[in-house]
Amino acid sequence: MQHQLLAGKNGIIFGVLNEQSIAWAVAQQAKAAGAQLILTNTAAATKMGTVRQLADSIGAGFCIADATNTDDLEALYDYCVAQLGGKVDFILHAIAMSPNMRKKRAYDDLNYPDLIRTIDISALSFHRIMQVAVKKDVLNRYASLLAITFMASVRTFPDYGDMAQAKSVLESIARSFGYRLGKTHAARVNTICQGPTPSTAAKGVPGFDQLSHFSDIMSPLGNPSVEECAAYIITLFSDYTRKVTMQCLYHDGGFSAMGMSDEVTGLLAARE
Amino acid sequence: MQHQLLAGKNGIIFGVLNEQSIAWAVAQQAKAAGAQLILTNTAAATKMGTVRQLADSIGAGFCIADATNTDDLEALYDYCVAQLGGKVDFILHAIAMSPNMRKKRAYDDLNYPDLIRTIDISALSFHRIMQVAVKKDVLNRYASLLAITFMASVRTFPDYGDMAQAKSVLESIARSFGYRLGKTHAARVNTICQGPTPSTAAKGVPGFDQLSHFSDIMSPLGNPSVEECAAYIITLFSDYTRKVTMQCLYHDGGFSAMGMSDEVTGLLAARE
Amino acid sequence: MQHQLLAGKNGIIFGVLNEQSIAWAVAQQAKAAGAQLILTNTAAATKMGTVRQLADSIGAGFCIADATNTDDLEALYDYCVAQLGGKVDFILHAIAMSPNMRKKRAYDDLNYPDLIRTIDISALSFHRIMQVAVKKDVLNRYASLLAITFMASVRTFPDYGDMAQAKSVLESIARSFGYRLGKTHAARVNTICQGPTPSTAAKGVPGFDQLSHFSDIMSPLGNPSVEECAAYIITLFSDYTRKVTMQCLYHDGGFSAMGMSDEVTGLLAARE
Amino acid sequence: MQHQLLAGKNGIIFGVLNEQSIAWAVAQQAKAAGAQLILTNTAAATKMGTVRQLADSIGAGFCIADATNTDDLEALYDYCVAQLGGKVDFILHAIAMSPNMRKKRAYDDLNYPDLIRTIDISALSFHRIMQVAVKKDVLNRYASLLAITFMASVRTFPDYGDMAQAKSVLESIARSFGYRLGKTHAARVNTICQGPTPSTAAKGVPGFDQLSHFSDIMSPLGNPSVEECAAYIITLFSDYTRKVTMQCLYHDGGFSAMGMSDEVTGLLAARE
Repeated sequence: MQHQLLAGKNGIIFGVLNEQSIAWAVAQQAKAAGAQLILTNTAAATKMGTVRQLADSIGAGFCIADATNTDDLEALYDYCVAQLGGKVDFILHAIAMSPNMRKKRAYDDLNYPDLIRTIDISALSFHRIMQVAVKKDVLNRYASLLAITFMASVRTFPDYGDMAQAKSVLESIARSFGYRLGKTHAARVNTICQGPTPSTAAKGVPGFDQLSHFSDIMSPLGNPSVEECAAYIITLFSDYTRKVTMQCLYHDGGFSAMGMSDEVTGLLAARE
Repeated sequence: MQHQLLAGKNGIIFGVLNEQSIAWAVAQQAKAAGAQLILTNTAAATKMGTVRQLADSIGAGFCIADATNTDDLEALYDYCVAQLGGKVDFILHAIAMSPNMRKKRAYDDLNYPDLIRTIDISALSFHRIMQVAVKKDVLNRYASLLAITFMASVRTFPDYGDMAQAKSVLESIARSFGYRLGKTHAARVNTICQGPTPSTAAKGVPGFDQLSHFSDIMSPLGNPSVEECAAYIITLFSDYTRKVTMQCLYHDGGFSAMGMSDEVTGLLAARE
Repeated sequence: MQHQLLAGKNGIIFGVLNEQSIAWAVAQQAKAAGAQLILTNTAAATKMGTVRQLADSIGAGFCIADATNTDDLEALYDYCVAQLGGKVDFILHAIAMSPNMRKKRAYDDLNYPDLIRTIDISALSFHRIMQVAVKKDVLNRYASLLAITFMASVRTFPDYGDMAQAKSVLESIARSFGYRLGKTHAARVNTICQGPTPSTAAKGVPGFDQLSHFSDIMSPLGNPSVEECAAYIITLFSDYTRKVTMQCLYHDGGFSAMGMSDEVTGLLAARE
Repeated sequence: MQHQLLAGKNGIIFGVLNEQSIAWAVAQQAKAAGAQLILTNTAAATKMGTVRQLADSIGAGFCIADATNTDDLEALYDYCVAQLGGKVDFILHAIAMSPNMRKKRAYDDLNYPDLIRTIDISALSFHRIMQVAVKKDVLNRYASLLAITFMASVRTFPDYGDMAQAKSVLESIARSFGYRLGKTHAARVNTICQGPTPSTAAKGVPGFDQLSHFSDIMSPLGNPSVEECAAYIITLFSDYTRKVTMQCLYHDGGFSAMGMSDEVTGLLAARE
């Protein structure tokens, strides 16, 4: 599908790590849809992954920046505006990291400075990206800002740990800042709740395989792929969706609207 | 627990069939809490079940009435006011029946007159109960009206058939009429979303055992019993909850807020 | 925006009355996006409005059909498949009518046969459209089915009367049938919750002007136009959104996520 | 209403500042309902308010503790168990403070360390209270834990600033920890979403008067009083609600289920 839906638009994509990243699928499709792009990630992630090479491979700009650091974001925006020759039309936030999960801390044994880090990195960074963008005046009218979330924000998935809290804040920030940016820039801010995706980050979640399996057999359409997620995101960055804002948009094959599925019934019946 | 929470209150309970009915547990506890009661059900249900004997056994009044029939409701209210010596403080709606489910019609092979009957019996009856009560002026100020729902109203349970639609309407009526009765009577109207309960009606649902099992292993507190449901309902009829209205209140051991549980993870891991 | 997003696709649009109809905006944009179309409405609506001429003006087929009548739907689908030379890829349901509202019945003075008519016409018709489509085997794999709803389904708008119940059922049907069509056709079924739109139907709602005004000052992006609604719908019919199903998608400038706005604060402050 | 609903139960109440506090109304009613109580607040709040005197006046214990400090919580629990002669049956979290709001920072000009403080004080403290309680093993089986929230967690109220994020996390913690405590202690964890209440904290919110006014004219039952809130909370601490968990319970006179009210319609009509 190459309909040039983003022709003439400038975008920034946070969170490409490697070829498994949702953000990378978005970058590829956004480029194919006619956008000019800057990819960005932290120095550590850049070293660990392949974001620099991926940016090169599609002719996107690249700039190291830590989204939890105001100075970095200011420098990033300076680079973007210079490189893109104009202001920004869309931003993707695909950043999530939980030190508590990495350290396999149980939910009733969290380290609190790490809980704050989880929230700061995975959620407050979205606020900071917007606040610095407003202060630097780099957003075009009708801009579209989007963050990737997971439904642990509203329902408990035991293995998802304190990232549940981060996703709750992330969605809350989308609503709060969405109001402001709507008034000042006619911009929109949404989150997309993607079904389980085997990215590098996700595969670190204990029990991810079962979570993915469960989601797949609960959803009539099965789990969505990263390419399908990226395709949906292209529409949300395009001019076709200008009045959709402050929403959490479920892209999950129907999982969020399911209470039980025939497969789960069958599975339980077989055990009796 | 016998705290006389309903001392001095008059109530009507729709939908007692037999000793397995949630409505029966409510009747018993409401009586123990000091209320005066009238039980009611259709002629057919009265013949099929034991509502008349149950009413007698706790000293409650009994009156046959079809809640889909305005004349019946008018006669019922006349009986209630005479029998109770005053107006009504609380009403329980525990009525649900789907001819399509009884006939085991698949969801893409529904009989439409039967779909309308499902909705009329299981949901519109709640509107009619309130509309006739208003017209007959039988509600006391601060009355509490409650209907029992199931979360198929908002998430799909394949075996729940067209009752999903009925429950959606039922909850919608609670919100719409809740607004009116709030303004005119300072009354409140809510629905309680009870976890799977092995009542006579429920046990007719194909796949009920698996549904009940699934709900039980997804919920940290397990499925709620009918006695626990009745206890909760007593608080909602009492004066402790006067500003709770137009809500769907989940009484489900946590099911509605769960995305996945350790038990489900374990069950899937064991199959791999 | 003419990106041929629907090139090669066949669609049916229910509910075009005249040039103010959302369905008409969808028809125009779907045609411009490359789709082949059939428009349909009842005989009465055809006489009252201009759907036949509008269909002619864009080279769409036209066929009279009452969506509450199985025979009509069967004939419609025969016509569509013959006319379009293939099965159907998308369907829009934009049908809503309340005899109780037309007769200005208060919510606690509803006529029950009319309440059933409201639900049958405005909601059960969506089920019937899908059930007959399945039985006649006219849906292509990956079809997209969409109905237009309003958020009175989940929150009370006093002037919206019994249409609130109809919209609740409509959304419920989307979830229930969405599960089935997902399994059998990899199809998706959603509702779009559009902000207040001055269509012919809407303008009949008492208090519509105030509702529209309120929604506009509560929403950071203001009320969405019919053209914006149609643009969003095009993306939902396209292949960009294949894993979005069983959702109610808010297209309302942010209204649904607002608790209060600066304008409302100002308005109340001015009165003090 | 004095039904001894909490006879034999031990409780801890966080967040009593003075006689306007919701937590104070809860303390009074819990005492009257037969509970033994410990009140607690920070040293600063104790100096600023009258919590010590209030505790004395009802024969409750009092202990200074900062809920963001693990050592303080450990000492508090030691004191409680000694003082109460047993473990704890219920806990109320009524703690909220935003340095950004105090400093009147606009939402797009937040100070980030202060944003973290808002979240730490107003939300993470609830996690810490539970985590330390589990580690110290001070919770009785069937304990009930409750935090007070506001619906800015899910809808935007512009004047509510970064407290919106704190309330989102707070509700998320209730769901995540509710799962764990349900499994280990058959305990329940909920939040109660109270309508606008003129507490000392709330009155500091700019635009609070308009918010309260708006909520009052939108809700069919009007804004709930602190006494009504406390009465509802007593039921949630009692044994009548043992299977209600992981819920956000709206106690708001219907506000959350309203889209528009006759009063608002009238107000807008009058301006035209």
